[in-house]
Amino acid sequence: MKLTLMASLCALALSARGQTTLPLMPMPSSVQMGAGQLIIDSSFSVAITGARDAILQRAAERFIGHLRQQTGMSLLSLKVIEGPNAALVIHVERESKGVQELGEDESYALQVTASAATLNAPTLFGALHGLQTLLQLVQTTSDGFAVPALTIKDAPRFRWRGLMIDVGRHFMPIDVIKRNLDGMEAVKLNVFHWHLSDDQGFRVESKKFPKLQEMGSDGLYYTQAEVRDVIAYARDRGIRVVPEFDMPGHATSWFVGYPELASGPGPYQIERKWGVFDPAMNPTDENTYKFLDKFIGEMAELFPDQFFHIGGDEVNGKEWDANPKIQAFMRAHNLKTNADLQAYFNSRVEPIVAKHGKTMEGWDEILRPDLPKSIVIQSWRGQESLAGAAKQGYRGLLSSGYYLDLMYPSSQHYAVDPMSGAATALSSEEKQRILGGEACEWSEYASPENIDSRIWPRTAAIAERLWSAQDVTDVNAMYARMNVVSHQLEGVGPTHNSYYEPMLRRIAGSDDIESLRNLADVVEPVKEYAREEQALTPATSMDPLNRLVDAARPESEKAREFASMVDVYLAGKADAATKTTMREWLTVWRDNDAELQPQIASSFLLKEDVKHSHNLSEAGVAGLQAMGYIDSGKQGPNDWVAQCNTTLNDAAKPNAQMLLMVIPSVEKLVNMAAGISASKQ
Amino acid sequence: MKLTLMASLCALALSARGQTTLPLMPMPSSVQMGAGQLIIDSSFSVAITGARDAILQRAAERFIGHLRQQTGMSLLSLKVIEGPNAALVIHVERESKGVQELGEDESYALQVTASAATLNAPTLFGALHGLQTLLQLVQTTSDGFAVPALTIKDAPRFRWRGLMIDVGRHFMPIDVIKRNLDGMEAVKLNVFHWHLSDDQGFRVESKKFPKLQEMGSDGLYYTQAEVRDVIAYARDRGIRVVPEFDMPGHATSWFVGYPELASGPGPYQIERKWGVFDPAMNPTDENTYKFLDKFIGEMAELFPDQFFHIGGDEVNGKEWDANPKIQAFMRAHNLKTNADLQAYFNSRVEPIVAKHGKTMEGWDEILRPDLPKSIVIQSWRGQESLAGAAKQGYRGLLSSGYYLDLMYPSSQHYAVDPMSGAATALSSEEKQRILGGEACEWSEYASPENIDSRIWPRTAAIAERLWSAQDVTDVNAMYARMNVVSHQLEGVGPTHNSYYEPMLRRIAGSDDIESLRNLADVVEPVKEYAREEQALTPATSMDPLNRLVDAARPESEKAREFASMVDVYLAGKADAATKTTMREWLTVWRDNDAELQPQIASSFLLKEDVKHSHNLSEAGVAGLQAMGYIDSGKQGPNDWVAQCNTTLNDAAKPNAQMLLMVIPSVEKLVNMAAGISASKQ
Repeated sequence: MKLTLMASLCALALSARGQTTLPLMPMPSSVQMGAGQLIIDSSFSVAITGARDAILQRAAERFIGHLRQQTGMSLLSLKVIEGPNAALVIHVERESKGVQELGEDESYALQVTASAATLNAPTLFGALHGLQTLLQLVQTTSDGFAVPALTIKDAPRFRWRGLMIDVGRHFMPIDVIKRNLDGMEAVKLNVFHWHLSDDQGFRVESKKFPKLQEMGSDGLYYTQAEVRDVIAYARDRGIRVVPEFDMPGHATSWFVGYPELASGPGPYQIERKWGVFDPAMNPTDENTYKFLDKFIGEMAELFPDQFFHIGGDEVNGKEWDANPKIQAFMRAHNLKTNADLQAYFNSRVEPIVAKHGKTMEGWDEILRPDLPKSIVIQSWRGQESLAGAAKQGYRGLLSSGYYLDLMYPSSQHYAVDPMSGAATALSSEEKQRILGGEACEWSEYASPENIDSRIWPRTAAIAERLWSAQDVTDVNAMYARMNVVSHQLEGVGPTHNSYYEPMLRRIAGSDDIESLRNLADVVEPVKEYAREEQALTPATSMDPLNRLVDAARPESEKAREFASMVDVYLAGKADAATKTTMREWLTVWRDNDAELQPQIASSFLLKEDVKHSHNLSEAGVAGLQAMGYIDSGKQGPNDWVAQCNTTLNDAAKPNAQMLLMVIPSVEKLVNMAAGISASKQ
Repeated sequence: MKLTLMASLCALALSARGQTTLPLMPMPSSVQMGAGQLIIDSSFSVAITGARDAILQRAAERFIGHLRQQTGMSLLSLKVIEGPNAALVIHVERESKGVQELGEDESYALQVTASAATLNAPTLFGALHGLQTLLQLVQTTSDGFAVPALTIKDAPRFRWRGLMIDVGRHFMPIDVIKRNLDGMEAVKLNVFHWHLSDDQGFRVESKKFPKLQEMGSDGLYYTQAEVRDVIAYARDRGIRVVPEFDMPGHATSWFVGYPELASGPGPYQIERKWGVFDPAMNPTDENTYKFLDKFIGEMAELFPDQFFHIGGDEVNGKEWDANPKIQAFMRAHNLKTNADLQAYFNSRVEPIVAKHGKTMEGWDEILRPDLPKSIVIQSWRGQESLAGAAKQGYRGLLSSGYYLDLMYPSSQHYAVDPMSGAATALSSEEKQRILGGEACEWSEYASPENIDSRIWPRTAAIAERLWSAQDVTDVNAMYARMNVVSHQLEGVGPTHNSYYEPMLRRIAGSDDIESLRNLADVVEPVKEYAREEQALTPATSMDPLNRLVDAARPESEKAREFASMVDVYLAGKADAATKTTMREWLTVWRDNDAELQPQIASSFLLKEDVKHSHNLSEAGVAGLQAMGYIDSGKQGPNDWVAQCNTTLNDAAKPNAQMLLMVIPSVEKLVNMAAGISASKQ
């Protein structure tokens, strides 16, 4: 407990480097502390001066709502008022345009004194961001709720800061989308990339081609009214909505209702498994383009954003290889490879997209020199690919390194910078073409119940990378702030904390989840694509996502804290309290298996976790023994070391598609005990 | 931890008395266990035969939704299908009427075998209740999700099983109402009594008298469209909606826009304080009845239910006393007292209500022999009052004993039976007039954030009292089942568990709430109307409800568990594990104050809790010392006993409008230690 307390106290001070460690995320460009603080009491009010904007008016009301929620104040207090005497005056210079554009000025200046606050911004968008900063600054102090006096000047580093959610593989109801838009607003992301179709489902109502949703969605799709509602909701939060309709591959769901679009003989069924599949649109049939012209026209009207994402990834070409007419076409048009054929397809689709007033966007694979420089490349392949595109004159954004479904820790995403790696060699003009990046949540193993936990809080780290200065890289400071912001995020919408206990209760088959939580808190889902590789039978979209691997958080905070303590301890710098906490945790782990066994016996969902439970117990034993040797300065005997290594090597292996995250730290303890020299004894 | 585990295992067995202790609440009339269990896997399906009903169809879809939530199954699995081969077949005999009535047949029969389930009911309402029973039966077992094979025959004991929510004093947004309707459905309550106006607010849009909401609500009211939406939502869940418009007192908010209705000179402001106030309608002015005729006509159309609640409580008569015209009217009409004048008012309002097709309902005060026997009396005064009404030929329902805002434990509400006390002396015809009861949540100290915690899970105990047989009175069994049902309730809507941690984080001003929780878990708000009496300044509707007293649960589960352990221990029957747990808890309490002090120093919201925090520490010390004496068979020395008594007497007093609930148990320990005779030493 003391550790957390210290961390949160630290978060309110100034760090050694002079950067603020106020619980702000993303970190602003500049923070200058003032004297005193502005007390937020029930008389607090907000007024808007300057450009009038209905969105800003609603944002002020929502700000009041959030402030009421943060403070527990009455619905009768805290008001949006007229005139200059408000506690917070928001001034926006220019009216906003009908449709939010790429590259709008998002800067703002926030000044807080002991008596009032002002928020100035050239545009609505800066004001929206400034309000979120202000919400993050509200603290419970000894004198009341308060915001420290300060001056913040802030603007984003990148113009495109996105989150992609794949609703094709697992459909996500509107409320899931909206609560994640709320989370995006809180960390100043400005693009929601909506991956709306894939082999496993077509998720938007088309009035021109109704069999798309009627036959391709299992009834799980958004009506056009719902889409408009989401777009308006996002626009209110300064978020553009970019739709993606993946083509020519990843399109099986289209072919269930319209098999004539495909390159194979059909008929087609909605795909239930995960992976890359054979069906692909027929690029050689003029009817394909007639269909796409009508379809893109309809969707271009529904989605007001300038950009239209055509996917374009992962075409395996097998249907093309097997179709003699397509092969003949390729020969006739001198298209030597399937990549050439896909390039031909893209060169046909791009003018259609352009004709309907949109700019085409796609994954790395669409990049071929014959496409106009206006298109945008989203790189899942890596920084080389992104830099290459920029060199050729294409704008691009980075998603490689930001794939949330790979279950990597926040620190790993945080270390990925769109301007690092190959981008460092670019000219400044070329660098300008790197628009930003997008966190991506592919939904093979995400349900409406657990998807928020896959997105948050890790996306806050990516949001900071895309907003804040390149030299904001202190990982410990990031985690300290993220822990605070994570709770605030849960307050505004995402359910990445509250999903946990109900899932554990279901798995335990009991309201008593203490033992299961001890285990769940220190496991993580296996990384990258190992879940597929380790599956006993291929996973499908019909599978319940109700196992421990589905409840386990992508990043174990407990294991990270334990690792920190172990590092301090091994450096000989651990105080008594730290040692006590380490022993306590190890003891809980040691004893946990015995507590959990009765539940494992009575729950089919827990059966697969028996090995991890046993291993955690073994790790507890080994860790305590190692600390015993180290604290007494005695070398761990060779046979003990060998025994521990065997046990821990085994415990480090994946089980039930999860990893036991405390094992490396326990291994460190054992190695330390093993390495104590005889001279020290 | 072991205690909880044992309790939950017990809950799945059969009790000694032969009553099932499956986690069902309310307890059904009859449960007969069968052999084996019905596995609920992803192929589970539901079909409806018999009477077709759109409400039932929607209920089946919602049932599937809840089942998906309970099991974590995919949106692609679990279906409502056609035909007789479904895993669950629901058969309803009769179509339902356009408006749900008092006294509909709510019985159902549920049969579950190892291969299928059938739910038979004469009406829609029985089917709705049976579906809730089935949801409560789904368990995680070693073989999968399953429902035990059994036969349940069930019907409610009382026709009127209600929950009143006061939205006059604190407005509750629609989502709060809806999630509580979801909770009501889960425990088979069938009347939502909506207290829609009071001195502090008028909460419904009137198109005929728009100044009611425009000037009397602070902008916090329901549009008529929202009211219709709530009524439809309730109807889908087998719940009638009875509106209450309190008159002639508790009506200040009406007079802000329409001062001519009142008996005083005005002008009037929306009342901000709590209590009984002077303003009252003018019963001597014919314009009052003209207004009410139009108003009741409008509301009678908006609210389809047969019953129309006119309140009628707590008129202090001061405005009547002070108005010479009213005094003259009373003399002219031989009305000797203010009660006579109110009776005259009621005798004028009743025909208006009847003219608009409704049956009048009101609190005890409206009962006077000149009103027709059709009216319904809701008793807040007590069982005498209720039985008296029944004797005189009036139908009635009990709310005395079911006031949730008084913060009494579930066991106390559970012990109140509408048929006990004065009712036992009634004839069987008179008993028939007792329709049931209503839990009441008056909202002086309830906000949208914490109101669910004031209502749930205690209302489940009242729901059981009103549904189940009179001899279902085992309090321990009730608590064991309620603990399970409480989590299920949270899953369907009410937020009575999830509100807690965010409130504690706000109070602590930190994400580290371990120490605050240790304290919060063992305090309760003061009982009855002591919060008003102990207030330093009069509370108002503007006050934030963000203090520890607002976060603290009405009933401390931890204190109740500790009390149980102490009783077992004092009876000499505690095993080693129980003793260890007692010592652990006492130790945590002893050490907690030191941990909490830094947070108390830095949070204005915690300052008032310093005394309870200190006292909890003292109680931990005293308890541990007492156990030391008792376990060693040594009498506690006189000066130690005296010291403990002084400390504990002080600690038992209210502080910051809360009680420290573990003190009585620690006092028992000290008394035991004090009473060890010398001979035993």
